[in-house]
Amino acid sequence: MESLIRKTIAAALEEDLGHGDATTNALVAPAARCKARLVAKQDGVLSGISVFRQVFEALDTDLQAWQAAEDGDMVKKGDVVLSFEGKTRAVLAGERTALNFLQHLSGIATLTHTFAALIEDLPCQICDTRKTTPLLRNLEKAAVRHGGGSNHRHNLTDGILIKENHIAAAGDIKTAITRARAAAHHLMKVEIEVTNLDELRQALNAGADVVMLDNMESTTMAEAVGINQELTGGRSKLEASGNVSLERVRAMAETGVDIISIGALTHSAPSLDISLLIETCE
Amino acid sequence: MESLIRKTIAAALEEDLGHGDATTNALVAPAARCKARLVAKQDGVLSGISVFRQVFEALDTDLQAWQAAEDGDMVKKGDVVLSFEGKTRAVLAGERTALNFLQHLSGIATLTHTFAALIEDLPCQICDTRKTTPLLRNLEKAAVRHGGGSNHRHNLTDGILIKENHIAAAGDIKTAITRARAAAHHLMKVEIEVTNLDELRQALNAGADVVMLDNMESTTMAEAVGINQELTGGRSKLEASGNVSLERVRAMAETGVDIISIGALTHSAPSLDISLLIETCE
Amino acid sequence: MESLIRKTIAAALEEDLGHGDATTNALVAPAARCKARLVAKQDGVLSGISVFRQVFEALDTDLQAWQAAEDGDMVKKGDVVLSFEGKTRAVLAGERTALNFLQHLSGIATLTHTFAALIEDLPCQICDTRKTTPLLRNLEKAAVRHGGGSNHRHNLTDGILIKENHIAAAGDIKTAITRARAAAHHLMKVEIEVTNLDELRQALNAGADVVMLDNMESTTMAEAVGINQELTGGRSKLEASGNVSLERVRAMAETGVDIISIGALTHSAPSLDISLLIETCE
Amino acid sequence: MESLIRKTIAAALEEDLGHGDATTNALVAPAARCKARLVAKQDGVLSGISVFRQVFEALDTDLQAWQAAEDGDMVKKGDVVLSFEGKTRAVLAGERTALNFLQHLSGIATLTHTFAALIEDLPCQICDTRKTTPLLRNLEKAAVRHGGGSNHRHNLTDGILIKENHIAAAGDIKTAITRARAAAHHLMKVEIEVTNLDELRQALNAGADVVMLDNMESTTMAEAVGINQELTGGRSKLEASGNVSLERVRAMAETGVDIISIGALTHSAPSLDISLLIETCE
Amino acid sequence: MESLIRKTIAAALEEDLGHGDATTNALVAPAARCKARLVAKQDGVLSGISVFRQVFEALDTDLQAWQAAEDGDMVKKGDVVLSFEGKTRAVLAGERTALNFLQHLSGIATLTHTFAALIEDLPCQICDTRKTTPLLRNLEKAAVRHGGGSNHRHNLTDGILIKENHIAAAGDIKTAITRARAAAHHLMKVEIEVTNLDELRQALNAGADVVMLDNMESTTMAEAVGINQELTGGRSKLEASGNVSLERVRAMAETGVDIISIGALTHSAPSLDISLLIETCE
Amino acid sequence: MESLIRKTIAAALEEDLGHGDATTNALVAPAARCKARLVAKQDGVLSGISVFRQVFEALDTDLQAWQAAEDGDMVKKGDVVLSFEGKTRAVLAGERTALNFLQHLSGIATLTHTFAALIEDLPCQICDTRKTTPLLRNLEKAAVRHGGGSNHRHNLTDGILIKENHIAAAGDIKTAITRARAAAHHLMKVEIEVTNLDELRQALNAGADVVMLDNMESTTMAEAVGINQELTGGRSKLEASGNVSLERVRAMAETGVDIISIGALTHSAPSLDISLLIETCE
Repeated sequence: MESLIRKTIAAALEEDLGHGDATTNALVAPAARCKARLVAKQDGVLSGISVFRQVFEALDTDLQAWQAAEDGDMVKKGDVVLSFEGKTRAVLAGERTALNFLQHLSGIATLTHTFAALIEDLPCQICDTRKTTPLLRNLEKAAVRHGGGSNHRHNLTDGILIKENHIAAAGDIKTAITRARAAAHHLMKVEIEVTNLDELRQALNAGADVVMLDNMESTTMAEAVGINQELTGGRSKLEASGNVSLERVRAMAETGVDIISIGALTHSAPSLDISLLIETCE
Repeated sequence: MESLIRKTIAAALEEDLGHGDATTNALVAPAARCKARLVAKQDGVLSGISVFRQVFEALDTDLQAWQAAEDGDMVKKGDVVLSFEGKTRAVLAGERTALNFLQHLSGIATLTHTFAALIEDLPCQICDTRKTTPLLRNLEKAAVRHGGGSNHRHNLTDGILIKENHIAAAGDIKTAITRARAAAHHLMKVEIEVTNLDELRQALNAGADVVMLDNMESTTMAEAVGINQELTGGRSKLEASGNVSLERVRAMAETGVDIISIGALTHSAPSLDISLLIETCE
Repeated sequence: MESLIRKTIAAALEEDLGHGDATTNALVAPAARCKARLVAKQDGVLSGISVFRQVFEALDTDLQAWQAAEDGDMVKKGDVVLSFEGKTRAVLAGERTALNFLQHLSGIATLTHTFAALIEDLPCQICDTRKTTPLLRNLEKAAVRHGGGSNHRHNLTDGILIKENHIAAAGDIKTAITRARAAAHHLMKVEIEVTNLDELRQALNAGADVVMLDNMESTTMAEAVGINQELTGGRSKLEASGNVSLERVRAMAETGVDIISIGALTHSAPSLDISLLIETCE
Repeated sequence: MESLIRKTIAAALEEDLGHGDATTNALVAPAARCKARLVAKQDGVLSGISVFRQVFEALDTDLQAWQAAEDGDMVKKGDVVLSFEGKTRAVLAGERTALNFLQHLSGIATLTHTFAALIEDLPCQICDTRKTTPLLRNLEKAAVRHGGGSNHRHNLTDGILIKENHIAAAGDIKTAITRARAAAHHLMKVEIEVTNLDELRQALNAGADVVMLDNMESTTMAEAVGINQELTGGRSKLEASGNVSLERVRAMAETGVDIISIGALTHSAPSLDISLLIETCE
Repeated sequence: MESLIRKTIAAALEEDLGHGDATTNALVAPAARCKARLVAKQDGVLSGISVFRQVFEALDTDLQAWQAAEDGDMVKKGDVVLSFEGKTRAVLAGERTALNFLQHLSGIATLTHTFAALIEDLPCQICDTRKTTPLLRNLEKAAVRHGGGSNHRHNLTDGILIKENHIAAAGDIKTAITRARAAAHHLMKVEIEVTNLDELRQALNAGADVVMLDNMESTTMAEAVGINQELTGGRSKLEASGNVSLERVRAMAETGVDIISIGALTHSAPSLDISLLIETCE
Repeated sequence: MESLIRKTIAAALEEDLGHGDATTNALVAPAARCKARLVAKQDGVLSGISVFRQVFEALDTDLQAWQAAEDGDMVKKGDVVLSFEGKTRAVLAGERTALNFLQHLSGIATLTHTFAALIEDLPCQICDTRKTTPLLRNLEKAAVRHGGGSNHRHNLTDGILIKENHIAAAGDIKTAITRARAAAHHLMKVEIEVTNLDELRQALNAGADVVMLDNMESTTMAEAVGINQELTGGRSKLEASGNVSLERVRAMAETGVDIISIGALTHSAPSLDISLLIETCE
């Protein structure tokens, strides 16, 4: 995974540096050095701090850094998260790219944490979806974990999730589950999406390992939990999905579902305000 | 640019498809075909509709599509934006990646439009920054244009923007501007960031083409506009930056600044809700 | 997956073509055309026939081909598998690369089929391992399926398999299983390797979804099947691994294990003899 | 060549690691260290030992290794080939990829050695072909050298080998050789494939540098050697090809041919059994 | 930019090394070391000396080098520019690639210097064009700067230059300039090409920042300078282009134009003769 | 080779287009079409005409072209080489890149032709070297062939050329040749560089296939030809190298050497003047 992150960072630097930082190259001497402090301007949860460092290390192999917090740590407005010393050219050239990663990922971790904190006393997990920003899925899914959430399948290869159109193609729920299990390798579970309690019963009877309850009312979810207890003794898992808000998440978790998945964690989290203060060294 | 977008799409599909869509391959016959309609679930401005199409065309070269709206068009909740017919496997495998692009970019276009609409009668432009999502800058900057905004420099190579640390390295504002202009090729303008009116005067006297007013009060901005009129006859341009909100943007524009740049356009726009309805063909 | 195969084919052609087929370019006119027939010289099971075609299609977009057999079909010595007509330069330049893929993959499919045929009346699957040729895993795992085998996890990401060193690191079997399940996303099962029946009991009691019986005697395996029936009602699966030979495979399957995994399918299958007969067109 | 091998290793690690070793990351602490010994389980000839090391060095830059044997060395069952100490996570994550390279390449070196040993007292070389595994040609051809064989041309660019279809395209053997020599750069020799002694005479008279005797009986080969002596004083070389087996290779070499080329060296060598024993450090 | 240069060097080494230096690998021991001196065989201006070093450093990470001159320095026939000590294999393998870069780039720097020296007392700059060798633009534009020239826009993205066909498409000069400025980001200037003084007047009146005088006589250029002074007070810049020769360049500069652009700097500079003397170390 | 050229063209277009042609996109409508004629402004030999076409075809898949001359054809000042019709945006965006290839390669073909024409009645070939522009070797070596020259080895892999430092490393000429031949595959010849007639004798006696006469006087070369006749009956080839000029080339060829190699063909050929005339279609 480290090598994939290095490639992502290299591509991001090419995107922002083009064939060189015209301003810095004109005005800052190659040998000039500076100190910099990374300071939180808002409370939140960090994610991407090692990516942030690697951006600068890609530009200055001798950078010295002192790190005060790790991915997953909460920071308060005013906290110094990291300080470092290095070549001024590298620091100015890497600043924007490094912050773009860090603020975006910390925004996701912070929003995830906000949801997770509301239900932390309940046996229910906040989980992400595949609604991630193209090309950043690995990092965004790590940010969800840093915020206290769990991950759903990474991509279409490493998990089976049967949706409405798949059921239509297979003919019925039972056939769909049976055929999916036969095609999956023996370490994959089978999940299926249902929209009502009758479908839920069919799915559990057909041996679904996980059932996604799509856009259900909380009262229906509570009934679903009872049905699962009755038919599988709770061995199958229930995932609630759709219309999840900060207002509604606790009521959903209280129904007894095992997992609540939320697309907004990765597609609509505002970035966290963190900034870099640079002082030229004497 | 087309070839860069094709590479981005291919990378996004690799990210989501891994070595194949396990569910669809198990349940949908290779020859099965379907119809799909892309429907807005929210009002907003479209961006990324051609990227959306290209995702599916990368998976099914014979896809037939009918497009009802273009990038930059406003859509209303319930509008059918596009409909198409193609291989069911390709449609199911590409759905998430295509929507991830479209919803993210349309979110940016929509937020930009919201800002731009508030000042559309004033001679002032809403402009983006380099605070974009890593690896998506081209597409995000296009989304800002679709929303009615203008673009700032694309990257560190294609525009000179002298900031505080650059001034410190050069010694003073005049030296910084003079040296930057000498290093720039002859089609580049020189912009410099100032924090007060004294620095503004120095910058304009040294020949700055554009001056960024960083985090100033609206009343100070209005004075800055007067000074620019006095010293350059308005030939230099003024850009306001920092703390721009929907509440404050009109007051800022009314000061007479030429450009208002807003990082949130690209780093904090929530995604626009658009969904794909799929019907198996008989 | 198609795009990954295209890249693999392009890289293989670069490897063999260098900067051009020196002999063919010297001796064959650009416009010359030929017919070719692909003929089995040995009985076996086909795999890689579409890769074979794509090699030539990459060199001659107008190639006309008639295909008599599909991946997974059995062929007899002398069978014409495919015939085509195209540019002689493309056919001669692509011949070796196309056959290298086809013979290697058909060799794997054929060996897999030989194992699978011996136990086809028993409820037990022949399964591959990660002992594949570097850079060809996707194609080799498809070849195993074409031969009637099933696939184990694709790589270290998409399945949990706890081995001796992992247990040592975690402290004991129960802790290892519990921690692995907590870290896995909710569509992954947990498999663990055991070397005796006591470890098997610990693993099943800790909730292992699959247990790998490493290098056990057939009599011990039979006991293991009984223990699994007793403790999980057969809901957990048993995989036998190690020292599998054509002589021994049926006795292993008769013990009642669910899966027999065999590294030799992909690391030691001899290539299948298939050749291309080319006639210049008049 | 080193940089090409590094790319091959990186691609192989991406193939097996995906976005991380799920099991090891869940169970082994980042700082944990271990010792490992690479032990031969079968007699054979080593090839790929430096690739094996580089796999781990790509994952742990501080790995300490002690190497007891080099590529080309014979090992006996039970020999410790290499021992090393490093991060447990790196060792477990790299184990399969490293062994897949080493066992495959050592299998080729071992089979080559078996052939070469049978004729080591004769002035005849065992030589490979282009029947290699796609994407691994460089490494497989090195393995043949490690086993005591020599290499044929690397690819279609760096050697002229005129086959039946090329002769047909050119019209006759003499024209084919003359035109090929004119097109080749002045450091390339010209080889041609013949199926009988009359064609051999034509080829030698037309100045062929090397002649491939395709699928001939040993007695015919012996005659061919005499003809070559008579017409060129042995300056041209003769290569025997087709139906080479361990039983037949010595009789072929005794005819006096210079080179015997064998596709099976690279397309059908079983992998050599070598394994990695890992002990967690206290 | 460093990472782009590293990629260019790696690609150039792959081009020349193929899968290894056959001669050197056969004849030079891996451990052999040598000393080498880089000596100018002709007077000229250096460019590419750091690229030259990086070629060898890519092949031998322990290379020791002593550098006597920098890019932009003038060298005399016989000067030792650089001396180094390293592995003989690396030095022989990298020699040709390193010299190919250095001689080509120094040729460009030298020709640029020859032009620039003829007008060094005049306020006029020698400037390059986009007539560069494909894939080497960055390095060639740096060579122009090393020779004392300035750079025009880097590519079609980072500068607006309106030519005859663009004017025709827009309708007239004024419309073209107005529309180009509206589309450009606010740090880009607008340049337009004119062929006579009437067009020049239209361009300046429409606010062109720079005007290219295409293929004009020197007397016409002098009139153009007067018109620019009259209409813009010299704020707009004039660039002369077409038919620039060593004979004519001074007369052109004496007209008062600001910039003279010359395609031949990059498309027709002969390489500078520099060679590498290698002594095996005892 | 086609796929390598496509990659080179794509990289060259990325280099020049960046993220779009700012001027053309601002001023030319997407649907606008134009006609263009490629016209020689100087006499010369064409090379790169298919690359030229492919540049535009990469930007406009529907381009219609009429080609009046092929690579290797001589053109006269004023000749229309090619005319085509296509999208104006594609034509303006591709113009510079297409011409940069064509003018550079035709410059090489033209210079090669000038040399070759001077000795066309003699049995001696003009040959290139490895002194090519980095990343363009394939195309430049093709240009030499288009101009009537022949190619030397393509790179360090596909030919053995023993130089002074290699001889020093091996000990003496005979040892160097013997060891090189043993290491080379059996389709490679062995060439060695000598500086005097004594070394020539040693080289021929040791069996060198080709001998490079480095920087010799013509009278010495003539003696060398006699020695080669005496020792090998002319079977070995002699290559003259160093200080080749248009003035001296005929005298060199008249000595009877087989090959004259000239670095300047590829490192110092001025570009050929060819231009593209574009007319907007009505």
